Amino acid sequence: MITGRTEIVAHIGYPTGAFKAPMVYNPYFEQAGIDAVVVPMAVRAEDYALVLPALFKLGNIRGALITMPHKVTTSALVDALTPTAQVAGACNAVLRRADGSLLGDMFDGAGFVRGVLRKGVQLAGARVLVVGSGGVGCAIAASLAGVGVAALGLFDTHAPSAEELAARLRLHYPALQVLTGSNDPQGYDLVVNATPMGMNQGDPLPLDVTRLAPSTFVGEVVMKTEMTAFLSAARARGCAVQAGSDMLFEQIPAYLEFFGFASTTPDALRKLAQLRYE
Amino acid sequence: MITGRTEIVAHIGYPTGAFKAPMVYNPYFEQAGIDAVVVPMAVRAEDYALVLPALFKLGNIRGALITMPHKVTTSALVDALTPTAQVAGACNAVLRRADGSLLGDMFDGAGFVRGVLRKGVQLAGARVLVVGSGGVGCAIAASLAGVGVAALGLFDTHAPSAEELAARLRLHYPALQVLTGSNDPQGYDLVVNATPMGMNQGDPLPLDVTRLAPSTFVGEVVMKTEMTAFLSAARARGCAVQAGSDMLFEQIPAYLEFFGFASTTPDALRKLAQLRYE
Repeated sequence: MITGRTEIVAHIGYPTGAFKAPMVYNPYFEQAGIDAVVVPMAVRAEDYALVLPALFKLGNIRGALITMPHKVTTSALVDALTPTAQVAGACNAVLRRADGSLLGDMFDGAGFVRGVLRKGVQLAGARVLVVGSGGVGCAIAASLAGVGVAALGLFDTHAPSAEELAARLRLHYPALQVLTGSNDPQGYDLVVNATPMGMNQGDPLPLDVTRLAPSTFVGEVVMKTEMTAFLSAARARGCAVQAGSDMLFEQIPAYLEFFGFASTTPDALRKLAQLRYE
Repeated sequence: MITGRTEIVAHIGYPTGAFKAPMVYNPYFEQAGIDAVVVPMAVRAEDYALVLPALFKLGNIRGALITMPHKVTTSALVDALTPTAQVAGACNAVLRRADGSLLGDMFDGAGFVRGVLRKGVQLAGARVLVVGSGGVGCAIAASLAGVGVAALGLFDTHAPSAEELAARLRLHYPALQVLTGSNDPQGYDLVVNATPMGMNQGDPLPLDVTRLAPSTFVGEVVMKTEMTAFLSAARARGCAVQAGSDMLFEQIPAYLEFFGFASTTPDALRKLAQLRYE
């Protein structure tokens, strides 16, 4: 029940019609006795630089979840960025800290990384290939660097995107080995499809699956279908896999911790959300 | 359940801790199947001129409930004011109209007037004395003028406040007889205490009750106790009365209609709120 003491987490994007976060967070807040509410706020790109700082003047706002089309522009509107947000070149969360300053972070990659870790993959010291250097590829690469992988291979059909990401990674993680220019999965412990290939039937595969070793763990970001053609092919090679939708519920506890709320498990959130949808 | 399609009604004030509106509106919206939510927003006076216009950039905001300390300053931040808001010199509601422009209105007096009408008092053509020309006195006088009373007597211990209200009334309602300078209730059909007298025990009465005719209807704005010393004295004279708290639930249907939501009765809201508080 919303009262005069309820804290706001703004969920900012445009359009907002397809937002799912309010239906996951709010039942969790209610169940956990957390006096906060996620409120969808439709903000057009041209209004964002005015609206975001104004919203953070509210005395009862805790933070904001940021989605399209504001992830990149948020970086310039906050006072500080985590290394993950700096490498990703974008934010999907803003926290108002005790001194009133705004901290931007990026959790699009955290969901992927947490899911992989939960499945028992050893990431510290691992060699990882991230195919696709768009928003989600950058975020995943940033989060992987943050948990101490040894080497990151980056590939994008638009080569400059991969090179720019590589430059940011080298700047923030000088000990990390960063490779670009190839999507050959051979020799990698973890391979991630962070391209949109798989959204539509008949899409080409993002890389040559015949070069995948059975010991390589394979991850996917496409959420449209649980098992994309790429994941199916990897499975057929004997690879363990992680589907795109796993990132979603894995991401929420990371957000909760960032905002300073009592956290929970992805499974508990998944059950709660199913309960409410049905 | 809040979704990406839920509309926002901002409840703006500072501080927000004692806000009651979310606990009345939101259960009503849920019960009535209205996809909207009242969200408390704590805005300091010094931030208001920045924050109010920014909030109305949100694509999914329907309107705002405005409370202290912003009622007077709101008038200068909207595109248009109803006659009631102009006479009252303040707003407690802002609607975003179809063309995007902001309309300010004032419902602090509507609750009083609706309550009195519901009790069968004939206001068209009536003679009314309003003692106290502060915020609520101005709002009540404005609403009374709007429903066609014939004469308004105004009194304030700070005479210029009553005179300024009188000038605004004469400007907007030239046919209305406006009298100032006396709190003598003799000859009035309705007498209203719109002063804070009655908030604290031992407060002097706002006017000489021995001059009240039994046929005069007597209203009160003080909500701290249901039956103030003034109302008790009026009752002892044989007068019918309306307590301050009656204004609260009478006001909400007026707000709902202003915002374009399906409306309901004060009694239905009262029952719903009791249900939820218990």
